[in-house]
Amino acid sequence: MKLWQKDTASLKEVENFTVGLDREMDMYLAAFDVQGSLAHTAMLETIGLLTKEELGQIHAALKDIYQTIIDGKFQLQDDVEDIHSQVELLLTQKLGDAGKKIHSARSRNDQVLVDVKLFLRSELESLVKAVQEFFILLQTQSEKYKDHLLPGYTHLQIAMPSSFGLWFGAYAEGLVDDVHTIKAAYEVVNKNPLGSAAGYGSSFPINRTLTTQLLGFADLNYNVVYAQMGRGKAERIVAQAMANVADTLSRLSMDMCLYLNQNFDFISFPPELTTGSSIMPHKKNPDVFELIRSHCNRIKALPNEISMMTTNLPSGYHRDLQLLKEHLFPAFATLKNCLQMAGLMLNNISIKDNILTDEKYRYLFSVEEVNKLVLQGLPFRDAYKKVGLDIEAGKFTYDTHVQHTHEGSIGNLGTAAVKEQMDKVVNSFPFEEVNAAIALLLK
Amino acid sequence: MKLWQKDTASLKEVENFTVGLDREMDMYLAAFDVQGSLAHTAMLETIGLLTKEELGQIHAALKDIYQTIIDGKFQLQDDVEDIHSQVELLLTQKLGDAGKKIHSARSRNDQVLVDVKLFLRSELESLVKAVQEFFILLQTQSEKYKDHLLPGYTHLQIAMPSSFGLWFGAYAEGLVDDVHTIKAAYEVVNKNPLGSAAGYGSSFPINRTLTTQLLGFADLNYNVVYAQMGRGKAERIVAQAMANVADTLSRLSMDMCLYLNQNFDFISFPPELTTGSSIMPHKKNPDVFELIRSHCNRIKALPNEISMMTTNLPSGYHRDLQLLKEHLFPAFATLKNCLQMAGLMLNNISIKDNILTDEKYRYLFSVEEVNKLVLQGLPFRDAYKKVGLDIEAGKFTYDTHVQHTHEGSIGNLGTAAVKEQMDKVVNSFPFEEVNAAIALLLK
Amino acid sequence: MKLWQKDTASLKEVENFTVGLDREMDMYLAAFDVQGSLAHTAMLETIGLLTKEELGQIHAALKDIYQTIIDGKFQLQDDVEDIHSQVELLLTQKLGDAGKKIHSARSRNDQVLVDVKLFLRSELESLVKAVQEFFILLQTQSEKYKDHLLPGYTHLQIAMPSSFGLWFGAYAEGLVDDVHTIKAAYEVVNKNPLGSAAGYGSSFPINRTLTTQLLGFADLNYNVVYAQMGRGKAERIVAQAMANVADTLSRLSMDMCLYLNQNFDFISFPPELTTGSSIMPHKKNPDVFELIRSHCNRIKALPNEISMMTTNLPSGYHRDLQLLKEHLFPAFATLKNCLQMAGLMLNNISIKDNILTDEKYRYLFSVEEVNKLVLQGLPFRDAYKKVGLDIEAGKFTYDTHVQHTHEGSIGNLGTAAVKEQMDKVVNSFPFEEVNAAIALLLK
Amino acid sequence: MKLWQKDTASLKEVENFTVGLDREMDMYLAAFDVQGSLAHTAMLETIGLLTKEELGQIHAALKDIYQTIIDGKFQLQDDVEDIHSQVELLLTQKLGDAGKKIHSARSRNDQVLVDVKLFLRSELESLVKAVQEFFILLQTQSEKYKDHLLPGYTHLQIAMPSSFGLWFGAYAEGLVDDVHTIKAAYEVVNKNPLGSAAGYGSSFPINRTLTTQLLGFADLNYNVVYAQMGRGKAERIVAQAMANVADTLSRLSMDMCLYLNQNFDFISFPPELTTGSSIMPHKKNPDVFELIRSHCNRIKALPNEISMMTTNLPSGYHRDLQLLKEHLFPAFATLKNCLQMAGLMLNNISIKDNILTDEKYRYLFSVEEVNKLVLQGLPFRDAYKKVGLDIEAGKFTYDTHVQHTHEGSIGNLGTAAVKEQMDKVVNSFPFEEVNAAIALLLK
Repeated sequence: MKLWQKDTASLKEVENFTVGLDREMDMYLAAFDVQGSLAHTAMLETIGLLTKEELGQIHAALKDIYQTIIDGKFQLQDDVEDIHSQVELLLTQKLGDAGKKIHSARSRNDQVLVDVKLFLRSELESLVKAVQEFFILLQTQSEKYKDHLLPGYTHLQIAMPSSFGLWFGAYAEGLVDDVHTIKAAYEVVNKNPLGSAAGYGSSFPINRTLTTQLLGFADLNYNVVYAQMGRGKAERIVAQAMANVADTLSRLSMDMCLYLNQNFDFISFPPELTTGSSIMPHKKNPDVFELIRSHCNRIKALPNEISMMTTNLPSGYHRDLQLLKEHLFPAFATLKNCLQMAGLMLNNISIKDNILTDEKYRYLFSVEEVNKLVLQGLPFRDAYKKVGLDIEAGKFTYDTHVQHTHEGSIGNLGTAAVKEQMDKVVNSFPFEEVNAAIALLLK
Repeated sequence: MKLWQKDTASLKEVENFTVGLDREMDMYLAAFDVQGSLAHTAMLETIGLLTKEELGQIHAALKDIYQTIIDGKFQLQDDVEDIHSQVELLLTQKLGDAGKKIHSARSRNDQVLVDVKLFLRSELESLVKAVQEFFILLQTQSEKYKDHLLPGYTHLQIAMPSSFGLWFGAYAEGLVDDVHTIKAAYEVVNKNPLGSAAGYGSSFPINRTLTTQLLGFADLNYNVVYAQMGRGKAERIVAQAMANVADTLSRLSMDMCLYLNQNFDFISFPPELTTGSSIMPHKKNPDVFELIRSHCNRIKALPNEISMMTTNLPSGYHRDLQLLKEHLFPAFATLKNCLQMAGLMLNNISIKDNILTDEKYRYLFSVEEVNKLVLQGLPFRDAYKKVGLDIEAGKFTYDTHVQHTHEGSIGNLGTAAVKEQMDKVVNSFPFEEVNAAIALLLK
Repeated sequence: MKLWQKDTASLKEVENFTVGLDREMDMYLAAFDVQGSLAHTAMLETIGLLTKEELGQIHAALKDIYQTIIDGKFQLQDDVEDIHSQVELLLTQKLGDAGKKIHSARSRNDQVLVDVKLFLRSELESLVKAVQEFFILLQTQSEKYKDHLLPGYTHLQIAMPSSFGLWFGAYAEGLVDDVHTIKAAYEVVNKNPLGSAAGYGSSFPINRTLTTQLLGFADLNYNVVYAQMGRGKAERIVAQAMANVADTLSRLSMDMCLYLNQNFDFISFPPELTTGSSIMPHKKNPDVFELIRSHCNRIKALPNEISMMTTNLPSGYHRDLQLLKEHLFPAFATLKNCLQMAGLMLNNISIKDNILTDEKYRYLFSVEEVNKLVLQGLPFRDAYKKVGLDIEAGKFTYDTHVQHTHEGSIGNLGTAAVKEQMDKVVNSFPFEEVNAAIALLLK
Repeated sequence: MKLWQKDTASLKEVENFTVGLDREMDMYLAAFDVQGSLAHTAMLETIGLLTKEELGQIHAALKDIYQTIIDGKFQLQDDVEDIHSQVELLLTQKLGDAGKKIHSARSRNDQVLVDVKLFLRSELESLVKAVQEFFILLQTQSEKYKDHLLPGYTHLQIAMPSSFGLWFGAYAEGLVDDVHTIKAAYEVVNKNPLGSAAGYGSSFPINRTLTTQLLGFADLNYNVVYAQMGRGKAERIVAQAMANVADTLSRLSMDMCLYLNQNFDFISFPPELTTGSSIMPHKKNPDVFELIRSHCNRIKALPNEISMMTTNLPSGYHRDLQLLKEHLFPAFATLKNCLQMAGLMLNNISIKDNILTDEKYRYLFSVEEVNKLVLQGLPFRDAYKKVGLDIEAGKFTYDTHVQHTHEGSIGNLGTAAVKEQMDKVVNSFPFEEVNAAIALLLK
């Protein structure tokens, strides 16, 4: 099939090619597009481009549309190009020419910019909440299993005693750092680009400070050229933050697959949560964790993909940016789904008892014995030598009771302190202000 | 050359292979290794593992070593494996057995972890300062050239009037968002991993809260398993932040190369800052910007490289992590060098006058004319139609005076407001507390 | 929504999570799954695991199913897990127990491996053909416009005379190298993994050489562990080859966007193939090329994504591999679509005449003048000096006729020689043998 | 340190910045630069731009320089910019003005292009040979340990019997596919770009076919614009091939680390090849494999880095390309070193006997028992049910003798057939022709 003649068939193909999946992607933005229009029109009235009455009608109609979106009943008609046109169409069907006025002093670029920011802001909020819930579960399991010892490995070689308390707690604490990077992404996203028009501003005396307040943004993307240049960049920074959460989940999944392996055999899950076979009753395939690992490793590749797609583009809008939505937008649901599934698994995990009583782990305790001698006053080199000779002579004895008391060790997990770290960073997000502003806008 | 026999030659090769560039990389860490040892030994004295006298001697000797490092005179001897061994050797040469005690209740893993964090923290501080200086230069140029108009492009097609004020200002504002991501990296880095031993803690009653204070860390990496797991992760998050700054510089460089091109011909630089040829007097190759672009695009690939090297590693130390230093550590100097060079270029840029008077830019002003009619009361569709017909009829007239007044537009750049954004985020870094703590430690 | 209790709702979620998009992905494989089953069952009959009669019935039924797939009427029923189960179901509905026998001496892993290879092989063939067509178009345009001169840039600075003949021809020749990498991918893909069972072979006396012949594979993946390990690897190598074609298209698109820009203004397209506006009659947005560039840059990130998802997985099957299909499979249609769209654009391009007569390009010819003097016997340094002084004195004269005659230069494009390179590599693909084998199988 | 004033200090910095590591990188190219000059000057003589006598003197002098390079005595003087200038300087010191003539009808771009291609070609040859040696070692070990059984895992769960014969053999066979991708890279690299001048050809009547023959290239990069555009592309395709070899090594290393782990405990190495401790006598850290894994995973990120650095650059030379050398050039030595080290380890591996007699592996044989019943005539579903019931009833008995006979299975490794695959692809490289041409040139 060669479509090189510029005829009807090829032009239809061009249209299909340029639209691509964008109508589908627009459905992610629908609710936010209405929010943006509510704020924009409220502002237009203050500068005389809409009458109070027009504004009243438009707001009522927009809120109706918003409700259909929330109810899952909103659709793009087949012959309508995008979400912005669909909303305009619905308005003009209802209000006539007044409906068209929502586009005064605004361009489609403007709309997409603000829609994307509002969408990302909303997704980051729900990501933070999902992470926080998972964090609490990890801490709960960490406390529950704080006395369950586990071999600690270095170089994947048996090295020192560890515990399930430490292990669960490590992933919990990791999430605190991840949330710091979500916070940075949120700062970047929580600024208002609306009013940048095609990326160069306009001669309309619009009030961007007002739309900023109405949409609950913490600040403006002042410079209109930057407002446009922020596209691709906001997406990349959000993807970096998602990649950090994904990496934590992916590493947890790797550990899970290893610990479930029969050679390790530290943990198990109910049969309904693994797959097996009646002729291989030992088999409990960790499909859920393998898929979490794979999804998360793919999300880790996302910032690089976005970089590749935006590298060396001169300033100003390029249609290249349209495609950034396709892998990023669904990734939020995927990542939250992974957190959900990991939560289900973790909540139903069984931990094997007395793992360290197995003979093969005995030398785990040799460092403990050396340190005990040191604490009793023997110089380190001498203590080390004595334990080495005992081992060689087959006289090595040890005590499986581990007495670690310093901050963050087996006997002193620091759960509350880490919880405080998480609370502090989560509380630094201005979710309440944002949601109050949006609620007011939609009232 | 096949080295498969386990003989002297092959074992020498193994040693070379495992050491690799690590001794060279250790030189980046030397000063920070001494800082870590000063804090660790001060703590040891409080728990009775060093006497006051020993501590005094050790601290004096460590400060001497620190001075040789600052003076650039510190060296790794050929037969010494790493920085930690070199410091220990110098101490024992001076103090005898007391010198060895700096390793009590600490492992080499511990040292590397804290060294890397201190190094990254210090580099991030100097990066923030370099970014801030460059930001100020961009804002200065933005104000200086705020009346120099420039064509604004969308789809790389002439679209709307822009200005050099907007253009410089856009990159300045971009740096604010970049610094937010550096802030997140700093939060991750500014936590104390010291005391995690081999990644599983120890039976020594060490006081990690004390070393945290002495080293000026804002908080602890509590969980010792997480302290270890943070390696690779801290590097990745730092690299993400660097990639964001790099992307801003890279895009600026692309614009510069384009604007210097003779078809655009918007800017020029003194001959000493470009390369040319006497037979092609028009040639002013922007080598500096091409190299900035290339360096920065490489830095943008760094987070992905770090991810690739750490993906699917089970928890616990692996020697894989050693190699993370090799591309990351030198990248700080590269990135700061790029900021420096971009600053030199920008400080010496010439902007062409009256660019928009060229006929080819006349339709830039068509949107302006439409908007003017709208502001005079004509409905948008009618205004648009009128201007379109005027153009078709060859009657289009326009005014090159651009009257944009809203926030962030040509006539209202918002320089002070953006400066405030930058100051706010820069001031949120606890540089003073950190530096005061380190100064106290070194006094 | 927290789904951490192991109840019906959460288990339904687990099912959704593990199935994911796989049923949709299976539709890409349907035809190839039937091909695999035809070969496998033919082999089973030769080793006595099917009777001749059973084979006849099974083959007839499979060919019916194949036809429904080709006709686009094949569907996965809602309650059927995957393509393999659907085919089995249809067979048993028709043939009873005999239908189940198609799974003798084979595992699902086996089926997926061979399906993926057959699919990739088929897609690579159609990619090669699409590339070849586009190559011919590029060469055609190169010959057509061989006398249209164009400025050649280095450092994006005007440097030397070039031509549209050279420019189109360069991209054509680039495709030859790209096809060499497709060839390598084809070699990797054109080997039979069938018979590896779960990745460790089996005690059935199967005849893998026979299925290799029946499916037209050039060779076997002998080692059954490698047959399994090849999953992820074949995908990556195929994606590398696609990335190479994508890079050629992406760079061509960048040039197109630049040359269409009004400051360059070298080319144009019919209005139907660009987007514009009646008030900006100069605007001809190259949306098609921007989207090609963006799609292709995303494809360039695909090999890295695959690497990230498979890095550090121990040998043996992991469910992680399931997700490799989701971005790779649709990428074939995207890449071919990009070639198609680029073909449409190129076929309708207009090239501006006499570009180089513009004064701003005059120094393009200074090197020409130097070389002429050298060819007349003047030492290079002297010739260079003379031209430099002439330019300085405003006495520089030049001739816009370019006399380049060596291989691959403006006057000697080497079109036929490059065509021969392309034919040679395309003809080295064993498409005929492969298609003959498949035709025989389906007869 | 702010260097924004255009003074001596800042200009020195500019010089340092633009030169960067390029002088160091040039040392990789030295020998190839001389080869290029030998061919170029031989050609110049045939078109009358050098006399026979001049050519004789120049060739003699170039061969002297070549010898100093081979002897490791060649150096770039401090004040000499690059390798090309250094060679010219040495020639003019010896021959006066005749020395300068080697630059007639050639540009520096030209030289770099051909140097890079010759260098890459040479490195690929030595990579193929290193891979081939390692392949033979893997096959040797595969045959040696063909009767040593090993658990085969799927989902990292014990699944089916495997063998060390299969395991070693799988990696050997993987290398065959990797070499196919090296072959594609070699095809791309083994074409002559010399004569493209600055990327747009020249008016000199040079004979590119002659230099192609003299340098042993299989063909020309005809189109001069493509010859230049091939820079970055050749590097990327070479890096893709290296990434494929690296991935094979990296996965092997992951398996090694796992199998050396005490929970698996399948293999061991002499103490000199691992690191341990006298108090943890069980510890045998696989540092060599961890570093191979890390080096190789970094190499896997290299193609992406190169893509990022070249994405969206318009056609024509850009100085960005200079930096591509810095990570790619040393990667060859690294990858060969990794092969060397892996060879040393493999050559000294010990395999544990009778692994599968451990009770925990008993259900490995359940599939075998089912298949046996099937081969005895029982329908699969019935056989499966019987074995499942036996297991449930504790009556499961099995035979650890594994009778797998089909191609590529435990009892029929296909070593010779795979060796033939490797020989075929290795023999398809035209190493002999290439080396004969170079030898002739240097005679």
